[in-house]
Amino acid sequence: MEQISLAHGNGGRLTRDLIEKVFKPHFANPLLDLDCDAAFLPTLLKPCFATDGYTVKPIFFPGGDIGSLAIHGAINDLAVSGAAIRYISLAFIIEEGFLFADLEKIAQSIARACQESHAVVVVGDTKVVPKGEAPGVYLMASAIGERFCDHLAPRHIRAGDCLVASGTLGDHGAAVMLAREEFGLSGDLPSDSASVLALAQSAAQFPGLRAMRDPTRGGLATACHELAKAAGCMMEIFEAALPINDAVRTIAAILGYDPLYFASEGKIIALIAKEEAEGLLASWRLLPEGQHAAIIGVVHEGVPQVILKTAFGGKRLVPELSFDPLPRIC
Amino acid sequence: MEQISLAHGNGGRLTRDLIEKVFKPHFANPLLDLDCDAAFLPTLLKPCFATDGYTVKPIFFPGGDIGSLAIHGAINDLAVSGAAIRYISLAFIIEEGFLFADLEKIAQSIARACQESHAVVVVGDTKVVPKGEAPGVYLMASAIGERFCDHLAPRHIRAGDCLVASGTLGDHGAAVMLAREEFGLSGDLPSDSASVLALAQSAAQFPGLRAMRDPTRGGLATACHELAKAAGCMMEIFEAALPINDAVRTIAAILGYDPLYFASEGKIIALIAKEEAEGLLASWRLLPEGQHAAIIGVVHEGVPQVILKTAFGGKRLVPELSFDPLPRIC
Repeated sequence: MEQISLAHGNGGRLTRDLIEKVFKPHFANPLLDLDCDAAFLPTLLKPCFATDGYTVKPIFFPGGDIGSLAIHGAINDLAVSGAAIRYISLAFIIEEGFLFADLEKIAQSIARACQESHAVVVVGDTKVVPKGEAPGVYLMASAIGERFCDHLAPRHIRAGDCLVASGTLGDHGAAVMLAREEFGLSGDLPSDSASVLALAQSAAQFPGLRAMRDPTRGGLATACHELAKAAGCMMEIFEAALPINDAVRTIAAILGYDPLYFASEGKIIALIAKEEAEGLLASWRLLPEGQHAAIIGVVHEGVPQVILKTAFGGKRLVPELSFDPLPRIC
Repeated sequence: MEQISLAHGNGGRLTRDLIEKVFKPHFANPLLDLDCDAAFLPTLLKPCFATDGYTVKPIFFPGGDIGSLAIHGAINDLAVSGAAIRYISLAFIIEEGFLFADLEKIAQSIARACQESHAVVVVGDTKVVPKGEAPGVYLMASAIGERFCDHLAPRHIRAGDCLVASGTLGDHGAAVMLAREEFGLSGDLPSDSASVLALAQSAAQFPGLRAMRDPTRGGLATACHELAKAAGCMMEIFEAALPINDAVRTIAAILGYDPLYFASEGKIIALIAKEEAEGLLASWRLLPEGQHAAIIGVVHEGVPQVILKTAFGGKRLVPELSFDPLPRIC
């Protein structure tokens, strides 16, 4: 049998076969009991809980796939909240006819991403829907972590604070758009999908750290709008300081998008007291994933909006995403 | 605006509008921070974690909808594992063009199901996929609970133990099949979708309770096969003792299905020491949802299989679900 059939979702023998053959070899760990619909966990002192659904298209793209993306997403939602991932739940919705070999690849990349961050899949679910009712696989990941940092909150942000990016921005969004055949472009720009846990733990050592965000769906612009609203401040971004790969700029230009709205899936935007910004920069640059860290903006008093200081010294409003149906990148 | 558009999934203003207008009014609680991708929870001493994806079709059916079904499913996965639900995460995958009014109804029924069981939605995610890529809404719920019972494990099951059902079986499966227009049947048989938490807590007081299952996808037959395999015992079911509504029997007969495979979504199958079975029965019958509880079987030594003692006294093997693509009922 090379393809997933509806009967793999009926709860009976084929569901068990699927679990035994594809999921068990990759996800096995002492907390995962495949005979039980729930997992018993050790005591959690400061638990943190996150969830995300994944509908990325294509499912496989340079630098990752829906599986690694989901695990990195779970790790990163917790990390920027000041928590280290421990336990993951996964719910698969699989289209009838999906190849076992592709599901196997996704399971492998989930396992690899989990191992890198010392996380384990402890519980899961699989549904199969008729051919045509879902484009391959949808995946939902929920994650439980333990907090390593208690002092983060956007309301602590104040005028004068700096915005620091941990690396290049927009790589994931550009990579997925390039991988979508519909744009008629080809190339091999990799997604930046990766864990930001080490970056977040490094940043958490600074008492002046106010808040962190992973600028995923909606990109830097959307993360800044959220922070501006939550803090009641104005955010100014320095265009000339933005670490954006040339390839990303080119793709954005060709497709007519602004890279400020392109998703990153392995980056942090930190808000930090001015006097600690250089320290954070130095600290991030010690990490391989922080080589391109940069101070990219400053907080002002004022109405919650986002301003771009252009490379030529002018200023323009960065509007919030509104009716733009950006391609599905997560 | 009456319909969900792709832009409601772009992470920007419309996503925020959707959350503010539909989700916030129903889900608001002190732990839900809509500005944050993670929730901070109080210490959990004996946490238990469960997850399920929901793809039921139709989304609305007599007795419930995909929203209440997801919450009851989360409650019940934890309850039969001996845990009381506390916190829920929800991930919505919504088809472009879905009606706001329908999403509102789903949110309402989620809120109602949560309130009944003192659970709160603490974190969530929304994705919108292009028209035709999902039939309305898929929903995934993960839940964290605290254990109230530590002595359950299928390996404790031994010959002589009794199987006790908390009520009528197969109602949900029959209700959803009836609600699917494709069968050309009409009627108003309600699903039994409900919390089994009170039933599970009542059962947990018996030291001879070995294990519990909620016989959802795949029905009683599948739950018994799982228990037989996990315990290494043979399960015998008494056909004459099975509490099955006449309407459910009729629908099964018309459609050519065996009601042993029909899902229940508000029932428990308990495995309990013989000398405590009558006590459990009495205890369940004190609850409104346990009125139709019945002793429905017994455990024997032998190879892990499921035997039906027919109403006429004969015995037949109950096969495990194999290549049957049962309609999607969860």
